[in-house]
Amino acid sequence: MGVITLTTDLGYRDFYQAALKGSIISLLPNVRLIDITHEIPSFNIQHAAFILQNAYHYFPKGTVHLIGIDTVFQEGCRYIAMKFEGHYFVGADNGIFSIILGEKKAEQLFEIEMMQDLRFLHFPLADILVKATCHIAEGNPIEDLGSAIDTPLQKVTLLPIIENSFIKGHVSYIDSFGNVISNISKDLFNQVQKGRNFVLHFKRNETINKMSWHYNEVSEGEKLCLFGISDYLEIAINKGHASNLLGLYPDETIMVEFLD
Amino acid sequence: MGVITLTTDLGYRDFYQAALKGSIISLLPNVRLIDITHEIPSFNIQHAAFILQNAYHYFPKGTVHLIGIDTVFQEGCRYIAMKFEGHYFVGADNGIFSIILGEKKAEQLFEIEMMQDLRFLHFPLADILVKATCHIAEGNPIEDLGSAIDTPLQKVTLLPIIENSFIKGHVSYIDSFGNVISNISKDLFNQVQKGRNFVLHFKRNETINKMSWHYNEVSEGEKLCLFGISDYLEIAINKGHASNLLGLYPDETIMVEFLD
Amino acid sequence: MGVITLTTDLGYRDFYQAALKGSIISLLPNVRLIDITHEIPSFNIQHAAFILQNAYHYFPKGTVHLIGIDTVFQEGCRYIAMKFEGHYFVGADNGIFSIILGEKKAEQLFEIEMMQDLRFLHFPLADILVKATCHIAEGNPIEDLGSAIDTPLQKVTLLPIIENSFIKGHVSYIDSFGNVISNISKDLFNQVQKGRNFVLHFKRNETINKMSWHYNEVSEGEKLCLFGISDYLEIAINKGHASNLLGLYPDETIMVEFLD
Repeated sequence: MGVITLTTDLGYRDFYQAALKGSIISLLPNVRLIDITHEIPSFNIQHAAFILQNAYHYFPKGTVHLIGIDTVFQEGCRYIAMKFEGHYFVGADNGIFSIILGEKKAEQLFEIEMMQDLRFLHFPLADILVKATCHIAEGNPIEDLGSAIDTPLQKVTLLPIIENSFIKGHVSYIDSFGNVISNISKDLFNQVQKGRNFVLHFKRNETINKMSWHYNEVSEGEKLCLFGISDYLEIAINKGHASNLLGLYPDETIMVEFLD
Repeated sequence: MGVITLTTDLGYRDFYQAALKGSIISLLPNVRLIDITHEIPSFNIQHAAFILQNAYHYFPKGTVHLIGIDTVFQEGCRYIAMKFEGHYFVGADNGIFSIILGEKKAEQLFEIEMMQDLRFLHFPLADILVKATCHIAEGNPIEDLGSAIDTPLQKVTLLPIIENSFIKGHVSYIDSFGNVISNISKDLFNQVQKGRNFVLHFKRNETINKMSWHYNEVSEGEKLCLFGISDYLEIAINKGHASNLLGLYPDETIMVEFLD
Repeated sequence: MGVITLTTDLGYRDFYQAALKGSIISLLPNVRLIDITHEIPSFNIQHAAFILQNAYHYFPKGTVHLIGIDTVFQEGCRYIAMKFEGHYFVGADNGIFSIILGEKKAEQLFEIEMMQDLRFLHFPLADILVKATCHIAEGNPIEDLGSAIDTPLQKVTLLPIIENSFIKGHVSYIDSFGNVISNISKDLFNQVQKGRNFVLHFKRNETINKMSWHYNEVSEGEKLCLFGISDYLEIAINKGHASNLLGLYPDETIMVEFLD
């Protein structure tokens, strides 16, 4: 029995995600279906990429991750299937694949060939993309779907900037606990830190100079920073909503200064 | 393994939908359960009918669709099971069955006979209706449940009015993208249009005179109309929230004028 | 195939609940997973206990209920697995087990022994607790997990006070329909009532003196009280949002007076 995950902006209150699931189990009655989330903000590719990047590796290798964001037909659009780190990803080539890959390379990347005139298809997600997803989840080769391509559509993401003893990044995501997650990865941090002490600067005058292992290391209501579940530098308040309490929202600059 | 779908107003944050699922898997440990939605506004039968009408045909024939809206006991109420277009529907006879059927006829329609005094039953949905649903999902005949009836309780729905070269309808549903869905079906539109050009009128002075195939056919931020996933005439804005941007909310009148 | 339920405050929009499910099916590909809810307010143990207490008995005996609330490591914390009324519960020993038990006793209660240094574990829920949960769901003995303990951490919950002919309780939960659920159980009510008439007092001057069997027993828009799905005394308005309409919110006092 294969596993298919769903990451979409379809929401839970309309019939769209149900239509998607009905389409899948009509083809594969015994497949295991897991919702990653249907609450991606409409058309928000960056948000969807962040969620999927952090979630996919918890699933067994061979899982097919169906991406239902911005999949409506437009002139020149293409739909693709990718193998990456033993997982499969199927979706529209709207830039999300390049964000998921980052600087890594896909193991396999195929454009899905269409037998239909897509202009007349109202719900390509529940049709083209479901067929490709089920094809792979059944254990069939990805090569059957179409022709190999070199790279997906590139979407620019703002990476942190390194200047002398500074990493300048920004807030990329606020989770439902109010934890503030940045775009500074643990790998980048370690690579620049080289064992030095640091001060994390944010807002006008806020600073943190200790890396915590977990939220409960400081008293309730106090701020801390850590590399949490997401492997990105995170600013949090123990048992509090850091984003609201500190006034830290997406796109705001944060800066790490390393001390010599 | 049978398939059961759930359409309710129980929400996701209380224990009610979990109690419903626990009741079902206690009877049928291997059944496949799919949530259509639990976010129907409380007691809103019209809304539930719209969702279910649009979702059910994506599922395999033989699926049992359990309807958990307005199922609480009242004097004279009855619970029914219906076969329609190869699918089964189980719920309270509160009018929703007549909306789902529209002008079509059920293949089978049975009142569920109760062995219990329903006045003393706090959660008929997780009891009577679950038993009937599981009975059918197991492959047993619907006839076992009780006695055949002719018609479900009739609930009046406002249909579009046709006058000379006009169809006068109204907004029936706003989806989570803000797309504005009317009560004018594709069949009705085609039948009255007979190949003529048209102008869609709404609000004071807004018009659209071209039918699109998909949302991306106009520039981002521009309005369009189309028959989308729901097969009803829909007013949308490419990548925008049409309902808020155009001020179009449920029950507002829209009018199609056909030009000779 | 075992059954695992999930009750967490992880929400549906982040990747956390998906990570949890991915971790589980990586260990047990065929287990049945049911969400009780992921919408517990952050760290709200009382709320989670109320939901789980009311939901668990709808599931088959042997079900493992994973509790994902306040599970982050802190000095001196422990993780436990409990057997109670034929069901299993796994979570952090933060007080929730004592609320679920009330005055009853667990059949089995074990501290989960850890092979890892928990300080370095970012997501104990998807690691330690998932491993213990899957161990039990596979049919292995709970004794394997660690050493037996006597009692879980005690958390004080405010119980109703009985004084002469009065029960003084409070509002403990508002469900998504707006029904107002108190902390006065049916057992306690019956035990003190001894067949007498009663008046339920709340707000300044509101009273109800009849116990209903179901919501539809009064006209739409009228108030009633009943023992509903939850087995706790509940104040409702037929087809209305009692909490908002009556101004009754959590922690407010309600009082039952028995008449001689």
